Amino acid sequence: MEYDVIIIGAGPAGYVAAIRAAQVGLKTAIIEKKYIGGMCLNWGCIPSKSIIESAKLFNRMKNSAEFGIEGIDPKALTFRWDKVKSRSQKITRKLTAGIGFLLKKNGVDVIMGEAKITGSGSVVVDNRSITAKSIIIATGSYPAPLSDKLSNAPVVHLERIFDLKEIPENIVVYGKGVMSIEMAQFFQLIGKSVTVVSEDSEFFPGIDEYLQSFITRKLKADGIPFVVGDPVEKFEDGYLYVKDKKIACDALVNSSFRNAIIPESQPALSLNEQGFIAVNDSFETSIPGVYAIGDVNGKSFLAHIASAQGLWLVNHLKGIQTEFAIHKYPLNFYTVPEIAQIGLTEQQIKDEGIEYKVSEFPLTANGKALIEGNTEGFIRMLSDKKYGEVLGVQIVADHATDMIAEASAYLQMEGTVYDVAQTIHAHPSVSEIFMEAGFEAVDKAIHK
Amino acid sequence: MEYDVIIIGAGPAGYVAAIRAAQVGLKTAIIEKKYIGGMCLNWGCIPSKSIIESAKLFNRMKNSAEFGIEGIDPKALTFRWDKVKSRSQKITRKLTAGIGFLLKKNGVDVIMGEAKITGSGSVVVDNRSITAKSIIIATGSYPAPLSDKLSNAPVVHLERIFDLKEIPENIVVYGKGVMSIEMAQFFQLIGKSVTVVSEDSEFFPGIDEYLQSFITRKLKADGIPFVVGDPVEKFEDGYLYVKDKKIACDALVNSSFRNAIIPESQPALSLNEQGFIAVNDSFETSIPGVYAIGDVNGKSFLAHIASAQGLWLVNHLKGIQTEFAIHKYPLNFYTVPEIAQIGLTEQQIKDEGIEYKVSEFPLTANGKALIEGNTEGFIRMLSDKKYGEVLGVQIVADHATDMIAEASAYLQMEGTVYDVAQTIHAHPSVSEIFMEAGFEAVDKAIHK
Repeated sequence: MEYDVIIIGAGPAGYVAAIRAAQVGLKTAIIEKKYIGGMCLNWGCIPSKSIIESAKLFNRMKNSAEFGIEGIDPKALTFRWDKVKSRSQKITRKLTAGIGFLLKKNGVDVIMGEAKITGSGSVVVDNRSITAKSIIIATGSYPAPLSDKLSNAPVVHLERIFDLKEIPENIVVYGKGVMSIEMAQFFQLIGKSVTVVSEDSEFFPGIDEYLQSFITRKLKADGIPFVVGDPVEKFEDGYLYVKDKKIACDALVNSSFRNAIIPESQPALSLNEQGFIAVNDSFETSIPGVYAIGDVNGKSFLAHIASAQGLWLVNHLKGIQTEFAIHKYPLNFYTVPEIAQIGLTEQQIKDEGIEYKVSEFPLTANGKALIEGNTEGFIRMLSDKKYGEVLGVQIVADHATDMIAEASAYLQMEGTVYDVAQTIHAHPSVSEIFMEAGFEAVDKAIHK
Repeated sequence: MEYDVIIIGAGPAGYVAAIRAAQVGLKTAIIEKKYIGGMCLNWGCIPSKSIIESAKLFNRMKNSAEFGIEGIDPKALTFRWDKVKSRSQKITRKLTAGIGFLLKKNGVDVIMGEAKITGSGSVVVDNRSITAKSIIIATGSYPAPLSDKLSNAPVVHLERIFDLKEIPENIVVYGKGVMSIEMAQFFQLIGKSVTVVSEDSEFFPGIDEYLQSFITRKLKADGIPFVVGDPVEKFEDGYLYVKDKKIACDALVNSSFRNAIIPESQPALSLNEQGFIAVNDSFETSIPGVYAIGDVNGKSFLAHIASAQGLWLVNHLKGIQTEFAIHKYPLNFYTVPEIAQIGLTEQQIKDEGIEYKVSEFPLTANGKALIEGNTEGFIRMLSDKKYGEVLGVQIVADHATDMIAEASAYLQMEGTVYDVAQTIHAHPSVSEIFMEAGFEAVDKAIHK
């Protein structure tokens, strides 16, 4: 069978590329070892945000008296892990079934099995050989194993949290990525004792130092200790020993740096220093006509960036060349409050020698944030001093991951702070903070 | 005392104009009869959304078992009206104090008293005469009184809801505006029996017929009868008689069409047919140098449009001419789910003879909406067929009033559906529906 495109891996990089490829008329096959939807739909983005949503409601309910709602005993409130899990699994099933349906509807051949690349344009799945003009690897990543010293520790890999029958009392989250902080907060919201342990102190590579320092302060304020230990010493009798600290640990959640899942290939694929598949600016690997998108190329571990790489690549294969500007892609953290960022960080702007302006507006001065009881946060807008172009936006707010989309629009269209100030926002709405930051950059905020 | 600008009325039209005028160097006074912040901050936007926020949480808590949270008895849950009210009043106090502070900080003279216009450039407050180059009337509106036939009914004017000690069981909301529907839903969410009565069946002048029909269906599905009666017959022994209907009515909430609050003026101000102050395109009244902004000119009854008129007028007075495009201003309804609209409606597009495309995407296919348990809704994007310019956007979603801001950005910058499709949205986020509608307009949605 001769295809235009064969895609290996049906996560958010692969399945989106497959649907789009078929939509633009390419004869497309997708090969998936086991789980349609990949890490994102089966254990990552979707299920993790689903359990976080339950935890947020649980937390809000405990404080519902502030909103004038009575008749509950906060101590009697129960977070039913079994039910929370099954709700999340129901959502996953619905979405993965939806993707199966969309692949079929768009005419993508779905082949279940493990793929082996046998050269430019050829793949073997279960002894069956199929060929295509282009092959796209989208096999994703998994958390790197922990040090051998911890072989006796009760390690739970991030994606295996859903296998836990019960959530133990003392949890250590190992890692410093977005998911580490999200999960640490999740356990804390449902009343567990949590510690974050990381090999080094720098959170989330790529985020603005201002947000990093916000997160550090926030963890401290929430009573989540953050311990830096390189490497951890040992695990013994229910305790993790990190430097001079002895930390109670019933579960050690491994959310450390991720490793690529490299498919078998002959000739071998060139890897970069970190072990990810080396690609050029068009996501092409060392084998001509073989591309790698998503986590496996190590450029990012965010689902929408993986999908965007897929969409970009399909355009490229069709001869449509567009810019792939990684700084126009939002970063999104489902913490409480949510954190989102797009564009250049202040450090990047400084490094580029651009003269810039920072305008900030706090949620405490926003009427809707007061109404919602979510005043922890701010908007921070970085703009070019000369022309006013919006270079970067950072938001900490309850719905920051949705609100950052407005900033994405400005960045996509190369909008200026004058555009932001002139864009009318509904009142009362949290999004009014954009207008205020715009006015502040132009001249002065109205409500500050 | 000679001012550059005297503003009469300190609601969202007046106080925003005053702050901005002072910021751009105009010597400014604001005259307020009683309440800094006006209707919006004292009874309208802010307090009403605050009690709605409590009602939404109350409703969500009743259904918290769906999220895996147990240990409450939904029947024991109590909506403590006294506490809900006092929370809302606390927020109002904080915000009105903030506005007082901002007026002072920016050097605006605040004069408490009732203003009488005594000609171009002169105003008398409590027998004291003050003059200015420009006078801006921003006195707002109040609900029109109900028919004399209802003089014996237990009428509660919208802004007097907060005077109620207890909320009675059977409520009739009289009116067909945004606030009528918001308040009807509020009462229904907290378990009251509600009927909406209106003189005619057309909701919310200015909104798309598609949204109108959504609201009609929604009221029906929520068990809120909508009765059209012109006029209502009578009130007798606790019942309101409308045509052939007899409706139990312990409180008749008057949320009918609004009347302008016209300040005393010599010479008299010309009014339009509906009784609002007649203004030209620069908001100038029949008296040269006297302007009218906000509800009092009858162009709109939304706070952010009032504020925008104030900002526009200050620019105008400073000689900066910008476009005041009413269709670039969002409409926002704090219903459950929220409803928001910006740009042209389908009917307006048809009337203008523009060839257009409609692209829709339902929340049921959005992962984050599933996670949040808020799948009732959609995005609907109207775009020019030839160039793809985004002409109008309608959103029904839990946070539609924030999400519409992204659409405002596209409209402000004259963005196209190609821009929308290329703008990267965080995954998972409800805002991904923009990208889908963009792709659908360009070609095909990915997840549909």
